[in-house]
Amino acid sequence: MSEVVEQLRQALPPEALVTDPDRMESYRYDRAMFCPAGMPLAVVLARETAHVQAAVRIAAEAGVPIVPQGARSGLSGAANALDGCIVISLEKMDKILAIEPVDRYVVTQPGVYNAVLSRAVAEQGLFYPPDPSSWEFCSIGGNLSTNSGGLCCVKYGVTTDYVLGLEVVLADGRILRTGRKTVKGVAGYDLAKLIVGSEGTLGIITEATLALRPQAAKPRTMAALFGSGVEAGNAILEIIRSGVSLSLLEIMDRTTIQAVNKYKRMDLPEEAAAMLIAQSDAGGEAGAADVATVAKLCRDTGALECIEAEDDAEGELLLEGRRVALTALEELGTTMIDDVAVPRSRLAEFIGRLEQLSAELDITIGVLGHAGDGNMHPTVVFDQTDPGQAERAQQAFDRVMEIGLELGGTITGEHGVGVLKRAWLAEEVGPVSLDVHRAIKNALDPKNLLNPGKIVAD
Amino acid sequence: MSEVVEQLRQALPPEALVTDPDRMESYRYDRAMFCPAGMPLAVVLARETAHVQAAVRIAAEAGVPIVPQGARSGLSGAANALDGCIVISLEKMDKILAIEPVDRYVVTQPGVYNAVLSRAVAEQGLFYPPDPSSWEFCSIGGNLSTNSGGLCCVKYGVTTDYVLGLEVVLADGRILRTGRKTVKGVAGYDLAKLIVGSEGTLGIITEATLALRPQAAKPRTMAALFGSGVEAGNAILEIIRSGVSLSLLEIMDRTTIQAVNKYKRMDLPEEAAAMLIAQSDAGGEAGAADVATVAKLCRDTGALECIEAEDDAEGELLLEGRRVALTALEELGTTMIDDVAVPRSRLAEFIGRLEQLSAELDITIGVLGHAGDGNMHPTVVFDQTDPGQAERAQQAFDRVMEIGLELGGTITGEHGVGVLKRAWLAEEVGPVSLDVHRAIKNALDPKNLLNPGKIVAD
Repeated sequence: MSEVVEQLRQALPPEALVTDPDRMESYRYDRAMFCPAGMPLAVVLARETAHVQAAVRIAAEAGVPIVPQGARSGLSGAANALDGCIVISLEKMDKILAIEPVDRYVVTQPGVYNAVLSRAVAEQGLFYPPDPSSWEFCSIGGNLSTNSGGLCCVKYGVTTDYVLGLEVVLADGRILRTGRKTVKGVAGYDLAKLIVGSEGTLGIITEATLALRPQAAKPRTMAALFGSGVEAGNAILEIIRSGVSLSLLEIMDRTTIQAVNKYKRMDLPEEAAAMLIAQSDAGGEAGAADVATVAKLCRDTGALECIEAEDDAEGELLLEGRRVALTALEELGTTMIDDVAVPRSRLAEFIGRLEQLSAELDITIGVLGHAGDGNMHPTVVFDQTDPGQAERAQQAFDRVMEIGLELGGTITGEHGVGVLKRAWLAEEVGPVSLDVHRAIKNALDPKNLLNPGKIVAD
Repeated sequence: MSEVVEQLRQALPPEALVTDPDRMESYRYDRAMFCPAGMPLAVVLARETAHVQAAVRIAAEAGVPIVPQGARSGLSGAANALDGCIVISLEKMDKILAIEPVDRYVVTQPGVYNAVLSRAVAEQGLFYPPDPSSWEFCSIGGNLSTNSGGLCCVKYGVTTDYVLGLEVVLADGRILRTGRKTVKGVAGYDLAKLIVGSEGTLGIITEATLALRPQAAKPRTMAALFGSGVEAGNAILEIIRSGVSLSLLEIMDRTTIQAVNKYKRMDLPEEAAAMLIAQSDAGGEAGAADVATVAKLCRDTGALECIEAEDDAEGELLLEGRRVALTALEELGTTMIDDVAVPRSRLAEFIGRLEQLSAELDITIGVLGHAGDGNMHPTVVFDQTDPGQAERAQQAFDRVMEIGLELGGTITGEHGVGVLKRAWLAEEVGPVSLDVHRAIKNALDPKNLLNPGKIVAD
C-alpha cells in the first residue's frame, strides 16, 4: 500500500497530500451519529480537478476505494472514511468561478460553503435558494451530493432544481462535462440530476453550474402557538389548502421550545405544545396579506396565540429559535436526528404518532422540521451511558422511519442514506429499484471503488 | 415472426392488438419531418400496465425491438416505428387515477392529454404548469419521455420539475416503481428524473405522480413591436436583468407575423420586424405593475409601439397570433422546426445570426420562440419540390444548431433528440458523455430492445 502513497506523492503537490495519522483523524467522520468509519491510507486535499483525476487514476489502478468528501457536515455517514481508502477532500477547491447576472447562473467549485456562495450572488442582486440549516458550514459539493433541502424549499425547491451542469471525475479518471448553461435543454439523458444525490458513488463533482433567481423581497414573519401538535398539524393542512405561497413554514414542539429556552433564554411560551413559524417573501402588501391569511387560518384552527413580527428584527428573532433548535436539543443529551418526509395531508397524524411513540418507549423526541413540505426532523434525545435508554433510542429512531413509510412517506427528505439508512432504503424502494441502483452503479463504477457501501450495501 | 404475433394474441385481449397493415400505418410516424420509419410487426394498444408487461416480455424473449409511443405529436422521430418492431402505444391508458388537493399531486396514466389533465386539476383549483404548444394533442407520457417545456416554463420550469414518481416497465418486463408522494425525498438515486427525457430508451412509463401548484391568477398581457430582431433581443435582456417575474415571454419575427396575418387575418402590424408578447400572472396590482415595467423597458429600448391588453379577451387575442404561428408558417410551404436554446445573454446575437443565415442561404426562416428562456424555434420554410431549396433548407436547419452551440447553447431545448438530432448530440455532449449514455442504456436494456437507435445511434 505504501506504493500507492508513493504514487500519490509523485502525482500531487506536497500540500495536497496528507498521510499523517493525526491529521487524517479529522477526515474520518462526517456529523452522523453511530456510523462506523475506517482509517484512510491517505487524504488528498485536491486544489484542482487534475488532482482529483490523478488520485482517482492511481486508486483505480491499485483497486483502492475512494471516499469523496466535502465539509463533513453530512448527517448520514456518507463521507465517512473506509479502512485503507483514499479520501478525496474537495474542501480546498473553494473558488467561485463566475457569476452571470443575465443568464442567472453561478459556476463554482464544490468546496465553496453554501453561505459564502449565497452571499456572493446576493451582492449582485441574485438568489441561490437551497438553504440547509448548516449553510454556514456545509459545502455546495456536499449539497449536490445529498441533494440538500433547507428552510425555503417549501417555495423554492431543493438543490437538484438549481443544477444546470456539472463537471464530474468518473471512476476511471475521465472527466464528464454534462448539462448546460441555458435555462432549458433536453439533449440526452439528464446525467446531472442522476449524479446529484448519489453521495459520491457515481462520480466526484469538481465544478457545478447552478441556476439563480432574482433576489426575493425581505420576508414578513409570524408565529402561532398551539395547544397540541395535532392542532398545529391541522393548521398546516389549512394553510396549504388555502394556496397561500409561503417562503418558510417551520414547526417546533414543546420539547424543542423548552430546549431552546434553556439554551438561549428566549422566553418562548412553554405552555404551548407546538409553535409554527411562517414567512412570506412576496413583498409589500402581498407579503403582509399572506402573513395575515396564515394568522387567520391559525386562529380559526384553534391557535392559542398569533404573533406577527412588527419588523425584520422581530421576524429574525422568531426564526432564531428554530435555527438554534438542534444545537439546543444537543445540549440535553445525545441526539439522533431523523429526517422523514410524509405527504402533507398526513402530517398531523405523523405528529400524533410521534407523541405516542415517545410515551410508549419513554424516550424524549423533539419534533421540529419543515412543516410546509412535510419533512420532519424528529430528534431522539437520550443518555448514552444508560444502556436501556440507548437501546430504546435506536428503537425510536427506526420506528420513526417505519411510521413515515406507513404514512406513505420517505425515510429521508434531505439528509440522504449514507451508511445510516442503507437497510431502510431497501425497505422503501424495494428489490427492483435496488437492482436498478446496482446496475447503474456498476455501469459507472464497475470496480465499485467510488464510496463503496454507501447508499446501497455491498 | 408470426410466432411473436401469435404469442401477443394469446397474451392480450383482441382490442389491444393491431396487426392490420392499414391500421398500423398511422402508428408509424410522429410529427417530425424527414425522419425514417419502419413497418411494425404489431401495434399493442395497451389498456393496462399488465399489457405493456406482457408485450415487453414476449419481445424480450424473441429479441424483437420495442417502440413505445404516446400521441405521436413529437417533433424528433423518437416515436417512429422500426421495421419488425412491436409498437407499444399508451394512448388507451388515458385515465386520471387520483387528484390530491392538499398533497398537491395527480396520479395519471400516460395516455392522458396534457390539456385534459390541466383542465381536470384546474377544476380543483390546481395548476399543472408544463404547457407545450401542442397541449391539446400531446400526451403526458410523451411529455415525460421528452421532458417537454412550453410557454410558461419561463416562470414555472419544465416537465421534470413536476415529476414526483413513476411506474416504469423495464426492458425485462419487471415493474419499477420509483419516486415518492412527498414534496421532498432523497432515498437513493433519482431514477425518475433519469427516465424523464429518455424517450422510451430506458423503460416504458405506465403511471406518473406529478406535482401541482395552486392555481395562478389570470394573466395580464402586453405586446411590443420592434424595428429589428436584435432590438427585440436587447429588450429581452433588459427585461430579464430587471428581475421582473413573467409567466410568459414570447417572440415572433416579421416572417412569422406575416404568415399569421395571412392565415388568420389578425392585422398584426407588418412594419414591425419583431413582436414580443409578455404575461404576468402575479395577480391584481402586482400583475399590472409587472406588465407596466415590461412596457417601459420595451419603450426605453426603442419599441415602436406597446400594446397593453385592456382585458382577458384582448390578452388572449394578442397571444392567439403566437399560438397559431407554427400552423401559419406551415401554410407557406414545407417547414422544418428547430429547437435551439442559447444563454439569454446571447439571444440578441442569435437572432441577428439567424437573419444573416436566412439572407446568406436565401431561404425563409421564421423566428419564433420562448424568448424568456432563450429557447427559440427557428422554422425553415421551403418548397420541397425545388431540390436546391430543399438542400439549402437542410443546411439552414443544421447551421441553426451549429450557431446555437457556438453561442454556448443546446441543440434541443424541449423537443428532444429522437432520430432527427442523433448526429448533433455527439457534437454537443462529447465522447465521454456519449459513453456514459451507452453504459446506462446497456445497464437498463442490455439487449438494446427499447427504442433502439433513438437518442444515441446504435
